[in-house]
Formats: sequence, structure tokens, C-alpha cells
Amino acid sequence: MMYGLLGSPVGKSWSEVLFNRIFELEENNNIYTAINVSPVTLKRLMEKMDVSFQGFNVTIPYKEDILRYTENRDPLVWKAGVSNVIKREGNGFTAFNTDYAGIEELFTKNGVRVDGKRVAIAGAGGVARIMIYYILTNFSPDTMHIFTRNPEITRKKIKGTWQYGNMKIRSYDDMEKYDVLINCTPLGMNEDDQSPFSPYFYDEKATAIDLTYQYDETKFMKYAAESGGRAINGRDMFFRQAEETYRIFFMDECEREIFSRARGDTLKWMTERLS
Amino acid sequence: MMYGLLGSPVGKSWSEVLFNRIFELEENNNIYTAINVSPVTLKRLMEKMDVSFQGFNVTIPYKEDILRYTENRDPLVWKAGVSNVIKREGNGFTAFNTDYAGIEELFTKNGVRVDGKRVAIAGAGGVARIMIYYILTNFSPDTMHIFTRNPEITRKKIKGTWQYGNMKIRSYDDMEKYDVLINCTPLGMNEDDQSPFSPYFYDEKATAIDLTYQYDETKFMKYAAESGGRAINGRDMFFRQAEETYRIFFMDECEREIFSRARGDTLKWMTERLS
Repeated sequence: MMYGLLGSPVGKSWSEVLFNRIFELEENNNIYTAINVSPVTLKRLMEKMDVSFQGFNVTIPYKEDILRYTENRDPLVWKAGVSNVIKREGNGFTAFNTDYAGIEELFTKNGVRVDGKRVAIAGAGGVARIMIYYILTNFSPDTMHIFTRNPEITRKKIKGTWQYGNMKIRSYDDMEKYDVLINCTPLGMNEDDQSPFSPYFYDEKATAIDLTYQYDETKFMKYAAESGGRAINGRDMFFRQAEETYRIFFMDECEREIFSRARGDTLKWMTERLS
Repeated sequence: MMYGLLGSPVGKSWSEVLFNRIFELEENNNIYTAINVSPVTLKRLMEKMDVSFQGFNVTIPYKEDILRYTENRDPLVWKAGVSNVIKREGNGFTAFNTDYAGIEELFTKNGVRVDGKRVAIAGAGGVARIMIYYILTNFSPDTMHIFTRNPEITRKKIKGTWQYGNMKIRSYDDMEKYDVLINCTPLGMNEDDQSPFSPYFYDEKATAIDLTYQYDETKFMKYAAESGGRAINGRDMFFRQAEETYRIFFMDECEREIFSRARGDTLKWMTERLS
């Protein structure tokens, strides 16, 4: 059976390497392909692909558009309006979202708590929306500010979805200092990427949480170290989401030892390739 | 049936848009997918993919590696040692190369002749090797210099393949002026790419031939205009190669009117997207 990733670009994702390694260790014939889809062909692909395609991860820019081609939605997808995993069920696809599980893993494994903290979130896309939802349902931050390049557009999109006293949508020109900074933009996937926040935003001992996972340390993370604080990349989140994806695709957990070996090999291959 | 492109990165190719448009106009169920393959999964993909996959274009960095997974080779593939199209035939894949047909179209359609000219070629990869072969079998240039970042490595690779009195392998530091400059590197696929040659290399009224096709005019092409000469991009070559690919996949010509409409739509969509 075929599984894969739909998006554009898809070349930075580690999913292809991880899942093919899992399938290899499981000694089955499954394949995972990273498919780069241009906007004019998404429709054809979703309508014409044959039943050997059983499920896909979905990435930028199709996390919302994909819902036009799905029959059913997981409750979290209804809430977020975005899906990052689809699975063939019956005559159509069902849409899921694994961001919540991934974010929960990242916060709990690293002991991050944001009660009473000043939180800044960069980006307002799909994963940022689940981040906001996760924080508001688990913590009471002092302030939560969401930074985007177009605050007006973001305000219209997010308004009415969440109500929180100290939540504001701001532009990167509104400089203020924060305790916890979270990068929900794709900046950091490529080696030379800038940080969404300048060093000015980092209060002393700031915690930086980067949802990108390609590099050990991004510029965004480096600034936290320079503030005397700490930084966490998105790898725990990535692997937790992959476990969830596996569970959705195969309605079963991936065998612990296999997942652990595949995780190790993926980390090794991908970090060697990037260094 | 499934067709596609294998490589990394694949996001800049126009093939996916062109072929899906052709299939749409032909009203069949074929799909063309651009699959981004990492080096550790090429083997699995070639061994495990099911028979619904009938053929692929192959791009950087697998034009040589793909030959490990093919049973038969077209004569041009034997000569060049690289393949850019594979097709399922019998129990395995047969390797083809459409570069010669594409280069021939580019030269003849634009009336380019290089007899007695001083020719500089940037790059020594798969397409460069077919370019050298095409020029040597059709013209007698005054000099033909091949520029690479590692002339020593290129010398070892190309030595013995072609003999030509005035052919030299040089580094970009060896500055000299040329009448005809040909870009066989991927520089020019991305908007901010530099030119492989500095303006110094362009003699007065130089002709620049760029095998990249994504932009109307690349920096490499601009320098030719500044020399008072002319510049040609790789679009004629791209579409000619697509016709050849179609012929290989379906053992038949694509209907003239359909190809022409698909070509026009692809140009329109892709240039709109890039501008």
C-alpha cells in the first residue's frame, strides 16, 4: 500500500525517511512517498488516485484546502479547521489532526508550563491555532500575543474562535519582551533562515520553543541561549506526530522497538545529511 | 496509471503541471506526481512500487543511480551513462534519455550554429554530457571549454569519453571571452540564483543558452543582452522533452491540439505563479 506526504515544498520533511525505515523493519511492502503538488493539480490527485493510496500527511499549503476532498472530520479538525493527516475510509477520505498530540508531548516531555508567563507566538497558521487551543485549555498565561505579518487578516480569521482576556494579535514591529517564545512559522526549516523574533523580544532566561526540527539549533533558538534561557526544537513533536499518524493509518501502535530504531536511524541519516 | 518525476528537489519542475493538464484534456484517469525521494529510500521505492506506476522522469541527483534499478537501456543512455526517463517494460524498467531531442529542438528552432565559434559550457553533469555529444556530432566549434567547480574530478570523469582537439576542462577562475555560452547547471531555477559566468566571459554579441526554463530571463541570460547579443531559455527544450517523454510512456505522439493547449496553460499558470 502507498502512504505519503502532500504539500509544496515537501523536501525538508523527515516523514519519508522515517516511515520507509519503519516499513523496512516491519518487512512489508508499504511505501511512503513525499509528493510535491502544485495548486492546479491537487484536485486531480485527490479525485483520480487509485485505492493503493491509503493515507497521507498533509503539509503547507494544503492543510485547509484538503478538507474540500474529505468526507469526514475528526473532532479536532472541526475545531481547528485544518487537517494534517487524511486516511482512506469507505469511499472517501477522513481528515485528522495530530498537532495537539505533538504539542502535548513537546510540553510535557520538556516540562514546559506557561501559567502566569508572557507568551509570544510567531505565526497564525494551522499549527499555531492548535498551539493556542492547547495553551488555553491547559494553562493560564499572563499574556498571549500572536505575531503575524498581517495582523488585520489574522484578526479576521481568529476573531470569534477563541476568547481570552490577554490575547492580542500583533505585528513584529510591536516590540516587547516575553518569557516564552514559540515559533509556529516555517522559518528554521532551511539552514540560513532568520528568526521570526529579534533578540529584543527575549526577556532574561527566556524559553524558546521551535516547532521546526531539521536543525539542532535555529537562530530563533540561539537567541534564547543568549538570554541565558533554554531552547527546545520540534523533534519530540515530530516523532510523536509520526506515532499518531501510524496509529491513524494502521489502527494500531507501531511496535516500540521498531519505532525506536527507525527514529534513531532517521535522526542519524538526516543530521548527517544536513551537516 | 501513475506517472511521475523522481528527484530531490522536484518542486521547481513544470512536468507535473503539464502532464496532469494533458491527462485532463485527454479525459483519462492517469496522474502525474512529483515525488521527492531522499537517497536512503530510492532503493525501496524502485523495488516496492506497484505496477500502477508505469513511468517516471528522473532528475537530480538520481540520473546515474537510477541505472542500478533498470533492466534495459536505450542506446543514448549507454553513451551518456545517465537516464532521465524510465518506463516499466516486462518485469523491470527500461532507461531512456530525452536530452538529445531537447537540445536539438533548442538549437534548430532558434537557428543556433556553433561552427567556428568559441563555446563555453557551464557544468559537466548528465545534460552537459549530452550537450557536448550533440555539439561534437553536429558542429565544429573553434574551441569548446567546459567549466566546473572541480576540473580535476571532471577530467577523470570525461577523459576517454570524447576526444576533441580544442576541448578543455577549466575552472571558473580561468577567465576568457566566448561567443556562445551554455548553462548546463541548475543555477537559474530559483529566482535569486547567480550566473555561473561573470559578465567578463561574454564577448561582444554573445549568445547565451540557458537550459533552465523557470524564468523568462535569468542573470546568465541578462549578461548576453548587455553584451549586445541574444539569450535563449530552456523552454523549447523542456516542451520537446515532454513530447518525447509522452512518446516513450504511451508509444504514441500526444495529439497536437491537446499538447499545444496544455503547453499554453502550463506557461500561463507557472509564469503567473512565479511573478
